[in-house]
Amino acid sequence: MHTREACLAADRQDPLAALKHQFDLPPGVIYLDGNSLGVLPKAARARSAEVIDQEWGVGLIRSWNTASWFDLPARLGDKLSRLIGANDGEVVVTDTTSLNLFKSLAAALRIQQQDHPERRVIVSERDNFPTDLYMIQGMIDLLQQGYQLRLIDDATPLEAALGDDVAVLLLSHVNYRTGYLYDMAATTALAHRHGILTLWDLAHAAGAVPVDLNGAEADFAVGCTYKYLNGGPGSPAFIWVAARHQDRFWQPLSGWWGHQRPFAMATDYQPASGIRRFLCGTQPIVSMSLIECGLDVALQADMTAVRDKSLALTDLFIELVEQRCADHPLTLVTPREHARRGSHVSFSHPQGFAVMQALIARGVIGDYREPEVLRFGVTPLYLGYADIWDAVDTLKDILDSGSWDRPEFHQRASVT
Amino acid sequence: MHTREACLAADRQDPLAALKHQFDLPPGVIYLDGNSLGVLPKAARARSAEVIDQEWGVGLIRSWNTASWFDLPARLGDKLSRLIGANDGEVVVTDTTSLNLFKSLAAALRIQQQDHPERRVIVSERDNFPTDLYMIQGMIDLLQQGYQLRLIDDATPLEAALGDDVAVLLLSHVNYRTGYLYDMAATTALAHRHGILTLWDLAHAAGAVPVDLNGAEADFAVGCTYKYLNGGPGSPAFIWVAARHQDRFWQPLSGWWGHQRPFAMATDYQPASGIRRFLCGTQPIVSMSLIECGLDVALQADMTAVRDKSLALTDLFIELVEQRCADHPLTLVTPREHARRGSHVSFSHPQGFAVMQALIARGVIGDYREPEVLRFGVTPLYLGYADIWDAVDTLKDILDSGSWDRPEFHQRASVT
Repeated sequence: MHTREACLAADRQDPLAALKHQFDLPPGVIYLDGNSLGVLPKAARARSAEVIDQEWGVGLIRSWNTASWFDLPARLGDKLSRLIGANDGEVVVTDTTSLNLFKSLAAALRIQQQDHPERRVIVSERDNFPTDLYMIQGMIDLLQQGYQLRLIDDATPLEAALGDDVAVLLLSHVNYRTGYLYDMAATTALAHRHGILTLWDLAHAAGAVPVDLNGAEADFAVGCTYKYLNGGPGSPAFIWVAARHQDRFWQPLSGWWGHQRPFAMATDYQPASGIRRFLCGTQPIVSMSLIECGLDVALQADMTAVRDKSLALTDLFIELVEQRCADHPLTLVTPREHARRGSHVSFSHPQGFAVMQALIARGVIGDYREPEVLRFGVTPLYLGYADIWDAVDTLKDILDSGSWDRPEFHQRASVT
Repeated sequence: MHTREACLAADRQDPLAALKHQFDLPPGVIYLDGNSLGVLPKAARARSAEVIDQEWGVGLIRSWNTASWFDLPARLGDKLSRLIGANDGEVVVTDTTSLNLFKSLAAALRIQQQDHPERRVIVSERDNFPTDLYMIQGMIDLLQQGYQLRLIDDATPLEAALGDDVAVLLLSHVNYRTGYLYDMAATTALAHRHGILTLWDLAHAAGAVPVDLNGAEADFAVGCTYKYLNGGPGSPAFIWVAARHQDRFWQPLSGWWGHQRPFAMATDYQPASGIRRFLCGTQPIVSMSLIECGLDVALQADMTAVRDKSLALTDLFIELVEQRCADHPLTLVTPREHARRGSHVSFSHPQGFAVMQALIARGVIGDYREPEVLRFGVTPLYLGYADIWDAVDTLKDILDSGSWDRPEFHQRASVT
């Protein structure tokens, strides 16, 4: 596709093209940041009015039963399970990804403590999303039981990091910065050969790439609903545990929602059977209810078609940047190999921050990640081929003209 | 006030009466469950549309800065601080009450570990809201460091429970079932004399009774925004720490939002200075934004006037029930003494469950708490004297007629 016309023709052939009409996209914007915050499903507007006016305003306390608020974490979990190769009763939507990491890490460590108490190393990746590392560090600091964090990096490849001293391997299925995609089945099998339990962070994978947790025989997983699943800003996260661990898992954030009989008001904690014991406290019902609108759109799309389009769009993005911006110091960060690529494309540029600000000012919204990385999320549910063309066209113009080099584009907000 | 007319006259004199017009109250309902889920502030409807349509739909990722989403936990915390005797920069709104208990308990235990490592007992109350006990139990089980939970009950009064082996005293300011109100200043002073740190659960106190955390020299506090503060179903909770502990506190749920520079993507966790280090992951922005609508109404009311009206209404409720329902086996559970009473009234009745279902069917919505307790929340911002009269009138009719004794009123929902 070397012309905009060819892109438009591809859009006309796109079997997923109609889905974008189920979202409200802001005018004048090409949104390449759906891997940070997904867009607004049109259905969310009516759903929020229903939850606020009727369920809260009129139903009030009765809505815990009549509007099934109590069931939301498990009901949304069942819907979400279809997108990640899980079964009904294996997923709940609740809390945040960071907190769910803490719960599942505690559960995995407890299983290992019982079976292999000598294993005191948690392996993760130096380039993992920082909160994953921070939560591990917090757990180690809290336990004071001699646990250590070992990081995979250039000096320590995955194979070298895994040994008989390792309890848990915690990886992101898709790397937040590079877009690198792990082979979940092969990596899990490798970990299992070493007696190691796996904990997968699906933040940049759920809804973005095919995920088959049960097929991969994974142990634990957590993830995010506000990126590719379009659940809304900060919408609650999810947590999955393999059925074979359901009778054994234990987690320390043992609030009343995870109790077998939350309203018996018993003095002692008795965990609910199944995945519900991963619940802790009362959930933010308005934010949580809106997740269903995004899930319902995602469930209309065949994941094979989503993956095909994602690869076609990321291929196109890479190809156009390399052809049309060849004179500029852009370096591809994302793997070229399809099997190793998630659904976003990253290029580094020495002035990445300013270039991204210039793009955003022109309505091409991607984001910037330290160091020097321009990150472009590719979301097949609402992006087309011509969008990619236009985005690269704008990038080319900004780079050719040098218009990124203005004072306002170098200015960093307090939080960026 | 022995007649409905006298109650109506009192309503006409009520300086807080106008505030109820800022809430949407369902027609035909007397809502005595605002201590479980507060009502809908009218402003929440427009605010939710703004957050969903504009901030999410149009602003998208930009809204983290342009709509100040990043600042919400601290900005709402500053507003809330005025209702609990705290200062700016001492409170954040985030996560759930259970999770905030875990964080502050960890912080308190860490301080004691450094100063008095021999203290390994956590004191709470057998009659405390169960999640408080469950979170302590989860922490003890996780740490495996010889911590113990000691419970205040009929056999072990507060004074007997506090000794040189105690690290932390965790109490609810107002008991969820009985409405018993602790003297926070005196109890904190007693704990401090024994070298014990205090952690107060304000779930049934914030917005309901005067709270003066700094005046009481308390150490830590957590609480709920969806009860008396009318933040919406499951809206995020809050956490407070005394300024003198701010440089020392540490908590293990160390997600990226509590990092000093969350977007530096550093490998190692470095806590933010101040209360922000109690943050963990990304917050549910829609639910969180609506909290402000409830807070804004609460901040219009003088807390002394709220307390006066609360006591007048709970006095009236007790008096009317004891006068008009004297033939029925109702026993007052709530303290008569003003200084020991929160803002709800509880009576036990051998058939409490069925009586409450009959009341709800007649539009008088309170709730039932094990064992046998009819609980009536009294919320001065939107309830009046005639509402109390009408509620007791309905209770009297249900008891006199025996109309509670129908099969449907004995039927328990899966979660009640």
